Amino acid sequence: MADWCLLVIDNKSHLINRNLKVVEIKDFGTFPTEILQDKDFSVEFDLFDKNCKLIPYYLTDIQSNLFRGPQIISPKDIAWLVYSSNLKSGDIVVEAGGGSGALTVALAQSVFPNGKVITFEKNKKNIEVIKKNLNMSPYSNLVELINGELNENTEIIPCNSIILDLPNPHSIVSWAEKSLEVGSKLLCYVPTINQVEKLLIALKTWGQIEISESIHRTWQSRSTAIRPNTNLIGHTGFIVSARLFNK
Amino acid sequence: MADWCLLVIDNKSHLINRNLKVVEIKDFGTFPTEILQDKDFSVEFDLFDKNCKLIPYYLTDIQSNLFRGPQIISPKDIAWLVYSSNLKSGDIVVEAGGGSGALTVALAQSVFPNGKVITFEKNKKNIEVIKKNLNMSPYSNLVELINGELNENTEIIPCNSIILDLPNPHSIVSWAEKSLEVGSKLLCYVPTINQVEKLLIALKTWGQIEISESIHRTWQSRSTAIRPNTNLIGHTGFIVSARLFNK
Amino acid sequence: MADWCLLVIDNKSHLINRNLKVVEIKDFGTFPTEILQDKDFSVEFDLFDKNCKLIPYYLTDIQSNLFRGPQIISPKDIAWLVYSSNLKSGDIVVEAGGGSGALTVALAQSVFPNGKVITFEKNKKNIEVIKKNLNMSPYSNLVELINGELNENTEIIPCNSIILDLPNPHSIVSWAEKSLEVGSKLLCYVPTINQVEKLLIALKTWGQIEISESIHRTWQSRSTAIRPNTNLIGHTGFIVSARLFNK
Amino acid sequence: MADWCLLVIDNKSHLINRNLKVVEIKDFGTFPTEILQDKDFSVEFDLFDKNCKLIPYYLTDIQSNLFRGPQIISPKDIAWLVYSSNLKSGDIVVEAGGGSGALTVALAQSVFPNGKVITFEKNKKNIEVIKKNLNMSPYSNLVELINGELNENTEIIPCNSIILDLPNPHSIVSWAEKSLEVGSKLLCYVPTINQVEKLLIALKTWGQIEISESIHRTWQSRSTAIRPNTNLIGHTGFIVSARLFNK
Repeated sequence: MADWCLLVIDNKSHLINRNLKVVEIKDFGTFPTEILQDKDFSVEFDLFDKNCKLIPYYLTDIQSNLFRGPQIISPKDIAWLVYSSNLKSGDIVVEAGGGSGALTVALAQSVFPNGKVITFEKNKKNIEVIKKNLNMSPYSNLVELINGELNENTEIIPCNSIILDLPNPHSIVSWAEKSLEVGSKLLCYVPTINQVEKLLIALKTWGQIEISESIHRTWQSRSTAIRPNTNLIGHTGFIVSARLFNK
Repeated sequence: MADWCLLVIDNKSHLINRNLKVVEIKDFGTFPTEILQDKDFSVEFDLFDKNCKLIPYYLTDIQSNLFRGPQIISPKDIAWLVYSSNLKSGDIVVEAGGGSGALTVALAQSVFPNGKVITFEKNKKNIEVIKKNLNMSPYSNLVELINGELNENTEIIPCNSIILDLPNPHSIVSWAEKSLEVGSKLLCYVPTINQVEKLLIALKTWGQIEISESIHRTWQSRSTAIRPNTNLIGHTGFIVSARLFNK
Repeated sequence: MADWCLLVIDNKSHLINRNLKVVEIKDFGTFPTEILQDKDFSVEFDLFDKNCKLIPYYLTDIQSNLFRGPQIISPKDIAWLVYSSNLKSGDIVVEAGGGSGALTVALAQSVFPNGKVITFEKNKKNIEVIKKNLNMSPYSNLVELINGELNENTEIIPCNSIILDLPNPHSIVSWAEKSLEVGSKLLCYVPTINQVEKLLIALKTWGQIEISESIHRTWQSRSTAIRPNTNLIGHTGFIVSARLFNK
Repeated sequence: MADWCLLVIDNKSHLINRNLKVVEIKDFGTFPTEILQDKDFSVEFDLFDKNCKLIPYYLTDIQSNLFRGPQIISPKDIAWLVYSSNLKSGDIVVEAGGGSGALTVALAQSVFPNGKVITFEKNKKNIEVIKKNLNMSPYSNLVELINGELNENTEIIPCNSIILDLPNPHSIVSWAEKSLEVGSKLLCYVPTINQVEKLLIALKTWGQIEISESIHRTWQSRSTAIRPNTNLIGHTGFIVSARLFNK
């Protein structure tokens, strides 16, 4: 069993697993986790002459410490996918493919404590990565992980939202029509315009079709030299969303 | 009591209140809501020779139909504020000022069904707008609406997140330090760089300081003429977030 | 004959034609140009109790005062088209269609004083608009205005650069191959991705193919409230450029 | 004496100096330039079993092959600086600091054949880099290179445009007022908002003050996978321009 928490040293936080034998923190040092076993949250203690404390962690801490398998959906896109899909506590959402599980963890938090995330991922290695990442969160019991492909022949799954990060989402549209509750949304995350084009054709009978892309620009936070950061992710994917009004 | 639902006509949806006497839909017509009283969700019926049905509505339907008072926080920013603040079912979040309640409704959905949103708004008129908008959602019981100013002398409110949309958020930083749980985030939404500068100075002892802005670009969805839309909102506000590691 | 110059009143400039009988300036007044006939550049004089002077004008003054016919190519795109096409004094450039002449004037300035701009425009009304706009500049003698369509059957025109703002630029690619000097560039300005796609196919044998779009973000210039302006032009056109290495 | 030209191999171009003894082209080979001495432009010949030819080069070829010293002003910013400053054949422009000469070469082309660029650069090493880069162009005779600092005590230089890429451009504003022709522009290229703020205060009596930044987004040019490139330069500098109406 993993036991994740944040170790705060000098106003910087480090996500650590207290059930590993040893913790290694870059530019700080390596030490046995034993030292941390009896520490209560928010109580200060000394480590290598530094003032430290343990505190609970965030979803965003998990996002920035994910085990990496395939390319990860970026936080800006996760934020928009979760918001647009209208997920709330108790909902059922289908996701395919699961990739590294970055989105999976966020979806689980949004339907917590009694909803359900059903994640399809055909690649066995990715399944292991998703499991590892889910185990960093308290949500693994909310996720049903299916090692297989979601395709037009998959059995219908009644659900409140479907999110696809697949090369050919247009081929899943008719399955989505049968599975989605009327009034709910299908969201597709695709890198190229050619994929957008195919999707638009497949979505002809759907309502509220929207194509968008988000550019998230971060700034340097020194008050005497405020400026946008030089490097910007110029493109991750287009998000195509559509709403099912007729089935 | 309001009774909101979506009326779908020809693959287009219209948010309506069945407890008003009359519904008016642009380019369609005006009719007594009486006609709709006995309709079940998802069952088709005819209205002015059009095929119609009623279905449940989304948070995003509310967002695009808000009663307008002061400037509304845009969906792209709401998505990022909710995501970054790590809100989940059961959390307590403080928000000031409430404005038109656009963010309030989204925060309520994110802490649903047993969390709490505490919203400060000093303007009496805005309070009425927020109430109207909250009444479109099923979440008004999750929101405590305070008709007053949040300032450095406000009593401490233990909470998981604080979100400020105020002209001088830097003056609330010390109050936030006392109210926030260790490990939690303060998020500030400010239009000018001058405000960002003051905030950076006030946040000196905080961790994970991030400044960002999102540009959400929408595209035209005709498959034979795919192109970004001409008009783009070039700026709403900068989001400055900081995490409290020491108090 | 037009006689254009800038009238500066209170640190604001107004492009006026001294050969019209009367000048009308919004929020200032209307007066006979006679008053201005004997004024030398940069010498101050009084007008309606305001301190005024006449000065020479810029290309950018023309751009922001163009007579409007069809949609105008925006300054950000003009800047990039002129830069990428490597134009310099003495060059010959072919442009089609001329539209309102916004680009025409800029091209003429870039090949001034001894180069040549050959502009195709099939619409008679636009031709008149272009003429009017060219007459605001000192460059009308550098421009050959052809009231006709540029198409694959047009006679070859040896030139240093070709710039197309047409619905079907892919159909002109083979003509461009015959007309352009080896090593020179064809630049196409197109609004949709569907047009980009067709162009990419037609440009298969060309070198240095580049697709780009510029977003030009302007900021509010008050030192106490520095912020990006709210409205942004989110899309004008994609610029596809290609270089001819073989003919 | 350098003798630059483009060597085209397989639809790819390589900027080479025929007066060096040996040419080395990555992924192709190394060979004595002697082979190229007698070749005329546009005439094909064989080299290592590949079809080759020599052709004249562009300003943009120089830009992408500059000798690198200090950070280089990017093409998108050069395009906008040249366009906004209204430069044309015969003009006189002052530039400081010269950096690597990227802008210098472009300015020289814009005032060619009889204008003048006066470039201040206090760093001796940079002066050598600028010289090398200017020698790639046919414009070195149009540039006066001054190894020194431009500051408020520099003697007045009557000119049509001033472009500053310096840490403290606000301290040069009064000098610019004395040197610039009435109606002309001062353009400043600055990375931080703090610099913009100081400039705005110094420019209080100027007209047409504009702050802008350009984002130049490039796209992948495969017709079957059209998408924006992943990496984007998110920020280079803000361009602040102002026009002198009173002196």
